[in-house]
Amino acid sequence: MKHFLSLQEIQSLPSWVSEAVELKKDPYRDHALGRGKVLCLLFFNNSLRTRLSTQKAALHLGMEVMVMNFGSEGWLLEYEDGTIMDQGKAEHVREAAQVIAQYCDIVGIRAFAGLKDRKTDEAEQTLTAFARYAGIPVVNLESSVGHPLQALADAITIAEHNTRKRPKIVLSWAPHPRPLPHAVANSFVEMMKKQDVEFVITNPEGYDLNPEIRQGITVEHDQAKAMEGADFVYTKNWSSFTDYGQVINQDKNWMVTMEKLGKARFMHCLPVRRNVVVEDAVLNSPQSLVLAQANNRTYSAQLVLKKLLQQL
Amino acid sequence: MKHFLSLQEIQSLPSWVSEAVELKKDPYRDHALGRGKVLCLLFFNNSLRTRLSTQKAALHLGMEVMVMNFGSEGWLLEYEDGTIMDQGKAEHVREAAQVIAQYCDIVGIRAFAGLKDRKTDEAEQTLTAFARYAGIPVVNLESSVGHPLQALADAITIAEHNTRKRPKIVLSWAPHPRPLPHAVANSFVEMMKKQDVEFVITNPEGYDLNPEIRQGITVEHDQAKAMEGADFVYTKNWSSFTDYGQVINQDKNWMVTMEKLGKARFMHCLPVRRNVVVEDAVLNSPQSLVLAQANNRTYSAQLVLKKLLQQL
Amino acid sequence: MKHFLSLQEIQSLPSWVSEAVELKKDPYRDHALGRGKVLCLLFFNNSLRTRLSTQKAALHLGMEVMVMNFGSEGWLLEYEDGTIMDQGKAEHVREAAQVIAQYCDIVGIRAFAGLKDRKTDEAEQTLTAFARYAGIPVVNLESSVGHPLQALADAITIAEHNTRKRPKIVLSWAPHPRPLPHAVANSFVEMMKKQDVEFVITNPEGYDLNPEIRQGITVEHDQAKAMEGADFVYTKNWSSFTDYGQVINQDKNWMVTMEKLGKARFMHCLPVRRNVVVEDAVLNSPQSLVLAQANNRTYSAQLVLKKLLQQL
Repeated sequence: MKHFLSLQEIQSLPSWVSEAVELKKDPYRDHALGRGKVLCLLFFNNSLRTRLSTQKAALHLGMEVMVMNFGSEGWLLEYEDGTIMDQGKAEHVREAAQVIAQYCDIVGIRAFAGLKDRKTDEAEQTLTAFARYAGIPVVNLESSVGHPLQALADAITIAEHNTRKRPKIVLSWAPHPRPLPHAVANSFVEMMKKQDVEFVITNPEGYDLNPEIRQGITVEHDQAKAMEGADFVYTKNWSSFTDYGQVINQDKNWMVTMEKLGKARFMHCLPVRRNVVVEDAVLNSPQSLVLAQANNRTYSAQLVLKKLLQQL
Repeated sequence: MKHFLSLQEIQSLPSWVSEAVELKKDPYRDHALGRGKVLCLLFFNNSLRTRLSTQKAALHLGMEVMVMNFGSEGWLLEYEDGTIMDQGKAEHVREAAQVIAQYCDIVGIRAFAGLKDRKTDEAEQTLTAFARYAGIPVVNLESSVGHPLQALADAITIAEHNTRKRPKIVLSWAPHPRPLPHAVANSFVEMMKKQDVEFVITNPEGYDLNPEIRQGITVEHDQAKAMEGADFVYTKNWSSFTDYGQVINQDKNWMVTMEKLGKARFMHCLPVRRNVVVEDAVLNSPQSLVLAQANNRTYSAQLVLKKLLQQL
Repeated sequence: MKHFLSLQEIQSLPSWVSEAVELKKDPYRDHALGRGKVLCLLFFNNSLRTRLSTQKAALHLGMEVMVMNFGSEGWLLEYEDGTIMDQGKAEHVREAAQVIAQYCDIVGIRAFAGLKDRKTDEAEQTLTAFARYAGIPVVNLESSVGHPLQALADAITIAEHNTRKRPKIVLSWAPHPRPLPHAVANSFVEMMKKQDVEFVITNPEGYDLNPEIRQGITVEHDQAKAMEGADFVYTKNWSSFTDYGQVINQDKNWMVTMEKLGKARFMHCLPVRRNVVVEDAVLNSPQSLVLAQANNRTYSAQLVLKKLLQQL
């Protein structure tokens, strides 16, 4: 594994999950591994869980961390080749990536989808450019189209709470006032494909995810039907993919309630809007796994960093 | 002591002060205590002294520190229960607090008064909510109604410079162009109540502090009379409490001068506006203790963190 | 050396350069030197290279680092003495500098030129005030009129790549859409004066640098003539000094191209605007030293911090 850009890096999910579960038992066991190694975290967007959990993971591994809010602290980056840079952008990513790589050993990058143009978002220009030019391992801290550290944390959480041989897992769209990226949903779907589970996606018409990503997965537009007998219900809003980046529907009937949930466990990547995406009762109940998911962000990051450190 | 939210945590001030003075002599003596422990500092408002001194204290104790400017780096928080979160706030403090608590061992929080509504400020929603939900020790880095780490640093400073058995200490209001919170003044008053001193508050009519806090304390509206024979003059602006959060008077005659000060020591929590709150000559004279106070911020924070670490 | 404010601190450039080259071979050799020492980095302006390379240097030396974006995280500073501070500025630099000095052992400061008033910029108020009041070593991380850590990194880079006894080095102005400070150019000129090189400055009429700084140096207004037979071409935009801070000319003919460069090495401090300051082909060619320069920022900072630590 040269970088951790997407879930394609995970060959055997069960072995990754069991290794993460082992890490949790003794988080400082690899403290010597990161000694003298520097992790640089570049945030092009806001962050709470990713910011803190990735730092925590690095501390467990004995690494030093340098955090940079790129937007407010650095220079606006140009990504296109051959441009005449006489407008607002002061530095080309070619220089920025190569320079930063000289100051650290691994670089983590968060750069959300702009949701204005699908092609632009799918090009994942920030992540791709750093991976191309940096020459050091790059970790995806949520890009335009994927959030693999979240999906890995989710897989660990499911493994820790699953009691059935082949659980039924439902990914349900939920209403939200603002247009949100597809990254979390995409990565969750890709993660489900790596496991022997019964997996269904449910969303209103017009909200079907990227066909390439949901290929082979049942999409059910009747939420109640989809949730029947579910063991885990993962809820997340995303904007339309067809009508790219638009909020075409805020149907409140899609909010997850205790009644809909039944005996299933509730999952969400956070932050979550209470009583819009999911009712209070669900989050306050022991069926909610959202805190366990957030806690596992530390260990999914730690596992990825550990594997990258081992190959330095 | 579960948290350090207010001065109520201090049972015996003399023993706290003497312990802090001891710490100063050998700041690294408890360096092993914080090993593998993480302090998270959340700033909802600007900070210089608190930001740096608390980090320094943590370094002395061997802790790791993660600093987060919550406003610009994280998500806008909802504090009310039962709200339908379809407006600007993306995350509920219930989730934020519980999540952050999983990434660290102690959390420090700065959240100033909004000065718009007294009830809201007195509810101290940020501090209270974190203390309620985080499940780990919470340290007040200045809240709506109190700044106990400052008051503790002030007590240490007075102890180091006092030469009399029962010194006379005056808290004097001073003019300021903008409305300021009551937190520093409140905590200083509460700290004075814990000591055997002659304590007087002086301020113009209309600027009397919260009656509950100044209960039992002499309030003198004649500044000259109040300052007579003072050993320490603590100066601070605060907005009106009655006419909540308003600047009802900027009377320049209340500025502290060398003439008024006499032989007393001058104290202020900083930042201070020169020639508005206090004249240059005072700050430039050896009678000023403002730098000693700022320095003691490191040791007041260190003492609090040490006590919390010992109970983890 | 009490502070590192300018290149005047460097008595013997060759010995500094060879010491830096030695440091690069074993960056952690002085790791014990910084133990228990704290470096505080105060940014009044944006930064990428300086921010990360100086942190990296401190890590090599075993120091702890506290980074503060002064503008957004602290209080607006007053620099004038005797002012009545009843406007926007909340704290005087006298207090800020003395307070910060109590929390750290060395302080680094970045404060760019405002380019509005020459006298103001030449006064270097931020750097000068901290050096005057802090009482601890102050390091210039780029001030109004100089960027000595960059110039030192440049000198190291030239030493590493020079093959001639007395190389010809050209500092060439280049076009840029926005008015830029003179700091980098000034320090490069001053650094050249410390070496036995053939040095020429070339810029359009109206862009001659400060006469005091370029005293004794040939200024050639014909770029082609200046670059003839050059071994190193250092390119940088700066605004007019005579018509202070103005962009009086954006002549595209001054952009550096492969054709102009010939066999010379290309240097720039970064960030650089591609196809405005220099064409893509130059930056993408092996003749470009910009990454080597950026990498040497770590070692120029490390050398300066090491020398300051040795004198604490």
